[in-house]
Amino acid sequence: MRALIVPTGCSGIDELRIEQRPEPKPGPLQVLLRVRAVSLNYRDQAVVTGNYFGGKASRDMILLSDGAGEVLAVGDGVTRWRPGDRVMPIFSQVPPAGSPGAPALPLGSPLDGMGAEQVVCYEDGLVAIPEHLSFEEAACLPCAAVTAWHALMCAGRPVIPGDVVLVLGSGGVSVFALQLARAAGAQVIATSSSDDKLTRLTALGAAAGINYRTTPDWDAEVMRLTGNHGADCIVEVGGAGTLARSFRSLAHGGKIGLIGVLTGPAGDTNPHAIMLKGGTLHGIFVGNREMFERLNRAISVNRIRPVIDRVYEFDQAHAAFRQHVSGNFIGKVVIRL
Amino acid sequence: MRALIVPTGCSGIDELRIEQRPEPKPGPLQVLLRVRAVSLNYRDQAVVTGNYFGGKASRDMILLSDGAGEVLAVGDGVTRWRPGDRVMPIFSQVPPAGSPGAPALPLGSPLDGMGAEQVVCYEDGLVAIPEHLSFEEAACLPCAAVTAWHALMCAGRPVIPGDVVLVLGSGGVSVFALQLARAAGAQVIATSSSDDKLTRLTALGAAAGINYRTTPDWDAEVMRLTGNHGADCIVEVGGAGTLARSFRSLAHGGKIGLIGVLTGPAGDTNPHAIMLKGGTLHGIFVGNREMFERLNRAISVNRIRPVIDRVYEFDQAHAAFRQHVSGNFIGKVVIRL
Amino acid sequence: MRALIVPTGCSGIDELRIEQRPEPKPGPLQVLLRVRAVSLNYRDQAVVTGNYFGGKASRDMILLSDGAGEVLAVGDGVTRWRPGDRVMPIFSQVPPAGSPGAPALPLGSPLDGMGAEQVVCYEDGLVAIPEHLSFEEAACLPCAAVTAWHALMCAGRPVIPGDVVLVLGSGGVSVFALQLARAAGAQVIATSSSDDKLTRLTALGAAAGINYRTTPDWDAEVMRLTGNHGADCIVEVGGAGTLARSFRSLAHGGKIGLIGVLTGPAGDTNPHAIMLKGGTLHGIFVGNREMFERLNRAISVNRIRPVIDRVYEFDQAHAAFRQHVSGNFIGKVVIRL
Amino acid sequence: MRALIVPTGCSGIDELRIEQRPEPKPGPLQVLLRVRAVSLNYRDQAVVTGNYFGGKASRDMILLSDGAGEVLAVGDGVTRWRPGDRVMPIFSQVPPAGSPGAPALPLGSPLDGMGAEQVVCYEDGLVAIPEHLSFEEAACLPCAAVTAWHALMCAGRPVIPGDVVLVLGSGGVSVFALQLARAAGAQVIATSSSDDKLTRLTALGAAAGINYRTTPDWDAEVMRLTGNHGADCIVEVGGAGTLARSFRSLAHGGKIGLIGVLTGPAGDTNPHAIMLKGGTLHGIFVGNREMFERLNRAISVNRIRPVIDRVYEFDQAHAAFRQHVSGNFIGKVVIRL
Repeated sequence: MRALIVPTGCSGIDELRIEQRPEPKPGPLQVLLRVRAVSLNYRDQAVVTGNYFGGKASRDMILLSDGAGEVLAVGDGVTRWRPGDRVMPIFSQVPPAGSPGAPALPLGSPLDGMGAEQVVCYEDGLVAIPEHLSFEEAACLPCAAVTAWHALMCAGRPVIPGDVVLVLGSGGVSVFALQLARAAGAQVIATSSSDDKLTRLTALGAAAGINYRTTPDWDAEVMRLTGNHGADCIVEVGGAGTLARSFRSLAHGGKIGLIGVLTGPAGDTNPHAIMLKGGTLHGIFVGNREMFERLNRAISVNRIRPVIDRVYEFDQAHAAFRQHVSGNFIGKVVIRL
Repeated sequence: MRALIVPTGCSGIDELRIEQRPEPKPGPLQVLLRVRAVSLNYRDQAVVTGNYFGGKASRDMILLSDGAGEVLAVGDGVTRWRPGDRVMPIFSQVPPAGSPGAPALPLGSPLDGMGAEQVVCYEDGLVAIPEHLSFEEAACLPCAAVTAWHALMCAGRPVIPGDVVLVLGSGGVSVFALQLARAAGAQVIATSSSDDKLTRLTALGAAAGINYRTTPDWDAEVMRLTGNHGADCIVEVGGAGTLARSFRSLAHGGKIGLIGVLTGPAGDTNPHAIMLKGGTLHGIFVGNREMFERLNRAISVNRIRPVIDRVYEFDQAHAAFRQHVSGNFIGKVVIRL
Repeated sequence: MRALIVPTGCSGIDELRIEQRPEPKPGPLQVLLRVRAVSLNYRDQAVVTGNYFGGKASRDMILLSDGAGEVLAVGDGVTRWRPGDRVMPIFSQVPPAGSPGAPALPLGSPLDGMGAEQVVCYEDGLVAIPEHLSFEEAACLPCAAVTAWHALMCAGRPVIPGDVVLVLGSGGVSVFALQLARAAGAQVIATSSSDDKLTRLTALGAAAGINYRTTPDWDAEVMRLTGNHGADCIVEVGGAGTLARSFRSLAHGGKIGLIGVLTGPAGDTNPHAIMLKGGTLHGIFVGNREMFERLNRAISVNRIRPVIDRVYEFDQAHAAFRQHVSGNFIGKVVIRL
Repeated sequence: MRALIVPTGCSGIDELRIEQRPEPKPGPLQVLLRVRAVSLNYRDQAVVTGNYFGGKASRDMILLSDGAGEVLAVGDGVTRWRPGDRVMPIFSQVPPAGSPGAPALPLGSPLDGMGAEQVVCYEDGLVAIPEHLSFEEAACLPCAAVTAWHALMCAGRPVIPGDVVLVLGSGGVSVFALQLARAAGAQVIATSSSDDKLTRLTALGAAAGINYRTTPDWDAEVMRLTGNHGADCIVEVGGAGTLARSFRSLAHGGKIGLIGVLTGPAGDTNPHAIMLKGGTLHGIFVGNREMFERLNRAISVNRIRPVIDRVYEFDQAHAAFRQHVSGNFIGKVVIRL
């Protein structure tokens, strides 16, 4: 079977390889999957370019945390799944015994990921795909959608109807946050460097869009648009380069889900601005099974469909990564296997 | 000016009187309102029939807790409002000093209510009407909508997208709960004794309706419809006659907002069924200013319009009450002043 | 090895038997324990007298949910424990894969319990004993202390310093609730039918005791003792016979942990009294691993020692049960193995 | 009467003046107090040295936010208090109508403060002194103790028995946090630059003290002391100079109450370290009436006595400030009036 490999010491897209690997076999409590689609996250891009936590890949590793497929076979003792079931992996895989010496670890680094035609997971590391979603759509959920759900619904008070939710940019997490916040009855404000993207975000339900290139004081604009109320919830994917303005955009008693580092390490991160506002900053790192299952219910009840910018074939994987690095997309970039 | 009076010792609708009363004047920190519409609640009906807490009216009292109007004049020291502002009263009125000896008290018993052409309130006892609502629609909110909001969003964990919400019947609280739960992305199941009403409730967004007359084991039906998950939130307006089945309809870790007594005092109320489910029962008694203002934001952002069954003129007040007592309505019965 | 057996159809203490059984062997992910002590709960008494959920024992079963012991041997794949470790079982045992078809089940019914010299558990079904506790003391924790902790600290807002906590009676749950509430800085009020027991409860830290035999209106006394504030938290082990007065003893916004049925099925259980108080009723059924581990930290940091009324030898098991049924004890009754 | 005045443009302690001022009179809803004691906070020191938000004093202002006294007289409409009552002011004073145009403002800047023999407050701006406290002790509570209570008990999950609480230094907030966390059954770790102070902090109940001068990697020491668990709650008064190490000292899922800026503006404040830990950072700015009243209950039930380093007479006010600026104290510095 074919697998997408990030080689040891990899520092760029050109070094990615599609290799033939032996077909894996499920052991006790394990499940063999035929992966049908995978999707790209900023994190995968960091792994490929050698910028993920701790630097370059230390071994030849199968890429990508997010995917979807169907069950081909099950090992001894498996009770959750049967061949033919449509499933997605949980981002952090918990070995079955949940032993203290065996913590949950993410797919696609340091564990081998979903970028292969066949993959083995423990049965407890999978969740069912909502019925109305295709494999391509389901492949978008494990990292980006669970992260957005965690920030909106599980960190501090859940977002409720009438809340103002601010999303930064138009990547996977932000677009899911927009869709989920709208499903929750919130008023969404989105930022982007592109008016075209803002048009697409308002078509997806954003009440207002702010072009942070033409309106660099976007925090002041958030306050103006909300009658000086500010954002009750901010889904912060920018990091050091946006945090200072996020603090100033926050409503009294509001919350920020701190997710990302897209803007790099430089910037004003002093959080004292949240003192007078009684605000809260929550560290968010994807999420667990319970969150994923609640998210799936939300997606099913509200018939939410992930926003896919483009679907590539497996042998176009390099092109998929190049589009992702360019930033020239909205929502998710998917590869069909 | 005219006022709708429940006379001392009143025990039925026929005894209600519309009387001429002197026009009130606003004192310091008070506001004079021209009331434009009022709406009826089960509670008002209990006051008229002499069945409210503590029995029959002990004085001639102006009826009705819920209304909407515009500001005619303001007293000394008022800063919140100006003549022309469109406002609704908070159900429980807090005198301005918030002194311990002067607790919040409900309008329409024991305080004089909104059933008069002109009414005086303290400025802190009012909230602004959402822009897209008429006076008739706004008059539906103070008791029923705030109660539904409190049960859904402020008691325990707020309802989030994907939750199953069960509403009992088609009165004011239940229809608002249906609309607000839908705005929050929940899946709503409604019960009623009438298939016609169930048709209207599904048109309002309920995913399923259960006729409890033809399906007396409606708790089993709730479990069946949800794949044995049960309801994450139940808006309990029935009381003793429905509570046992509500307990059995609850999801593991679910919550019940206990609001009403519509079914009377008899029935199995033993709450031990919630032990194995880890469920929670929250006592709900309308709500405060903060809840009302959050509700108004939710209504504005989601363009929710209260469901009005029929609007009466002031001199048809007796007919309005007769319809309300018949139970032959959905949502709210309104009187225009 | 010897085991304490409740025989099929058992309806009384005299039918209990101590039998010789083959020594069990640990399978994969399992641990073999040498049980050193067990303690009795009201639930065990109900199993013996044939009054537990669903009636009399349907097979010869090893009794008792609560115990403590040391690890003798471990099966394949065990990483949490080594021989010599001192451990207690979690009340509800989760099979290792956590599969949906294999829910957590309580020890001592329907699973075989801890009343045997040797017992096998899955490694995930055990927690470590706090260092300063003996086996006899540790054997008191799994059901009664975890239940008290759950009610105080995990259901709704945790108890904080200055809260008023009301405990009913002097059984295992109530005495642990008293000790833990005191450790949390709360003011504790205890009820009992015996002035002697009240004297012991005040020695353990209760600020006040109420003899409900000589003061049948104990709810009024709770309000009087707290300057009409009421109890912020009530640990309700009584059930139908005490619930009406518990509702009347509650502070505005207070919570009740509903645990028990000690007073039998008859009584006024109508919960409408919590509506005006904005109170909450939480169903409590023991607790999970995370609660047990937090409890153990609390016990260690605050050097709490379980209150043991009397320790019996294994061959005095019948006498231990007879004392328990008599109600003539405070805290816990323990059997040493 | 005499008042302690920070003059316009004040930039140092020597410029403080004690002046004669006319005796104030209470208006409607106001109360006249005879102030008996005041206490110093870091904030007062910043006002005196011209370093408080926005720079130097823009008018001659009465200093100090914290004090305690007795009611001399009450204005029209006052119902909460009578002459002779012992009271403390709430840090942020809410004018009685709570009008949107009249937000709560702190005493001692921009409002005139408590540093005068007689002061007038609105009745809603006061709370009662716990019975067992002297005026000197009570004068310590309004800012420092309420802030500590807010961080521990009102921001996110309250501290519960067994939690690890980390307090930085030995100033007013930190010593109250130590005492309150101990009352709540937590294990407290304290840092200081002085072994003498650490000795006093352990005498007050700290389980361990870390000298951050001799152990500059105090975050590693926190992890070591807690068996790699970390602190469940950190009361962060340091700010930019300590935040990076606080992030590294945090337990998984732990919380930081962000209170202060004692270490100045320079330092690593990048909060990304809380992402992997799922930690939360709460902005804390003193607290409201409800918090103060809950705190008072906690202080009363647990007989907590504020730690006063030294009491000065009114004409020694300059010396009191000089000691405070030196940092050579533990807990609070008080001035008797």
